[in-house]
Amino acid sequence: MMTDFIINKLCIIGVGSMGGSLARALRKNNSVKSIVAYGRNHERLNVAKKLGVVDDVTADISDAVKGADVIVLATPLGAMPEIFQMLKDVIGPESILTDVGSAKQFVIDAAKESFGQLPANFVPAHPIAGTEKSGVEAAQAGLFEQRRVILTPQSNTDSVALETIRSMWQACGADVVDMQVAHHDEVLAATSHLPHMLAYSLVDTLARMDDQQEIFDYAAGGFRDFTRIASSDPKMWHDICVANRKQLVKMLHAFNEDLQRLTHAVEQADSDYLKDTFTRAKQARDKFCG
Amino acid sequence: MMTDFIINKLCIIGVGSMGGSLARALRKNNSVKSIVAYGRNHERLNVAKKLGVVDDVTADISDAVKGADVIVLATPLGAMPEIFQMLKDVIGPESILTDVGSAKQFVIDAAKESFGQLPANFVPAHPIAGTEKSGVEAAQAGLFEQRRVILTPQSNTDSVALETIRSMWQACGADVVDMQVAHHDEVLAATSHLPHMLAYSLVDTLARMDDQQEIFDYAAGGFRDFTRIASSDPKMWHDICVANRKQLVKMLHAFNEDLQRLTHAVEQADSDYLKDTFTRAKQARDKFCG
Repeated sequence: MMTDFIINKLCIIGVGSMGGSLARALRKNNSVKSIVAYGRNHERLNVAKKLGVVDDVTADISDAVKGADVIVLATPLGAMPEIFQMLKDVIGPESILTDVGSAKQFVIDAAKESFGQLPANFVPAHPIAGTEKSGVEAAQAGLFEQRRVILTPQSNTDSVALETIRSMWQACGADVVDMQVAHHDEVLAATSHLPHMLAYSLVDTLARMDDQQEIFDYAAGGFRDFTRIASSDPKMWHDICVANRKQLVKMLHAFNEDLQRLTHAVEQADSDYLKDTFTRAKQARDKFCG
Repeated sequence: MMTDFIINKLCIIGVGSMGGSLARALRKNNSVKSIVAYGRNHERLNVAKKLGVVDDVTADISDAVKGADVIVLATPLGAMPEIFQMLKDVIGPESILTDVGSAKQFVIDAAKESFGQLPANFVPAHPIAGTEKSGVEAAQAGLFEQRRVILTPQSNTDSVALETIRSMWQACGADVVDMQVAHHDEVLAATSHLPHMLAYSLVDTLARMDDQQEIFDYAAGGFRDFTRIASSDPKMWHDICVANRKQLVKMLHAFNEDLQRLTHAVEQADSDYLKDTFTRAKQARDKFCG
């Protein structure tokens, strides 16, 4: 951790579990002097202040960003285009802008659309961490420790801005890496967005069966873990699906094809296919996540 | 827990994580005097004995079952028909027979096939507990505490046999319930067998992408839990698929249809469909597994 990294004023736009965890992590590591949160829901803002996650709250965006070293967009993706529109008139040259969105091409396009071109002081970022719990009450200082944060800088991204955001996440204990935008969106579609679709879809399939209560009563050991991510915020996941739909649809089709083949193998009691598939999957899982 | 319940001689056929956990649980609660394991793999049997999970091991089945109060079949499902064939010539009238298989119609059919008719002293049972780890090394005395065990007695099942097996599982801390065979197989297909297929299939889909290592490196928080069950024993799951394929295929088709609809909604950025599905799933998950 860098001990000489200090943000004088941090502005968080959308202080839920992700923005709140960033605030708590930086605070814990003495990497920030003052944190202000901007939002449109006064009640939620006041909870953030009451919990001590932020120092000040405001519903005035020019007030929020004024003199901020770093501005972090931590809203659901769907709100970002409108936030960029508001920011373009109030953001000063002293501020570095970054985000935590799970679909980077979408965020970059939205910023370009609002600013005319991608601002050099904007560093697109995505911390690969999170919890199925939403709201600032779920914010944890340790959320990013030993987790990856992916930065997707563009050709015109200012190098000081880039290194500041890298240092900010390193101060939270994260392992920060750079990646191409398209590759980020593909990797996340595969490893995060697709699993969330499967969890939501499975729980929904079961919930529409007769005897819901009984079905869930008998859910075996692994089921609870397997479906935990279906407790994630529906609005946030709606936005991710829409924002990364090109890559997500590709992965859904690939998975669908594989599952159809597996279904056929079960139907035919094709022992070789079943054993090979399960063995290959177990080996990969044990090798990479063991 | 019943303190007056004692098995003098327990015979476990197939002493892996499930049979081993039963042995450890009964031993811990002083509900068994002597445990003998039958198996065909000497090395595995000796590990069970060395770990103190069982008192004796034998590769002679008539020796194993002789004078046993309770005989528990804890092999993979695929081995059960052959075991029933072997048992029919050696099992005495003093013994109660039970199993731990995840597909009850299959086990009942196999027993009928070998014995000519379903033996009255056979109590089909299924503990809804387990771990993705296999082998007797993974056996835990507490595996069945506060977990369900489903019994699927038939019209001719002896009531003393039934109550003995009920007491055996209660002595392990389990909550024992009776269920119709077809209903058991349907509920388990939905809540256990289908999720395992999805986990195996997802890991397999990802493992066949380029840059496997990278794909798994960036797997987000929920992914590890979501895919944990893909580490389960491939042979055991092959057998479950084949044994319960009628019910499992039905569930796979139902899930496939739902996933196709969801895929279409993502493609079309159908916000209402996505939000409704995710919200319904989150509500069901929070209500039933919260």
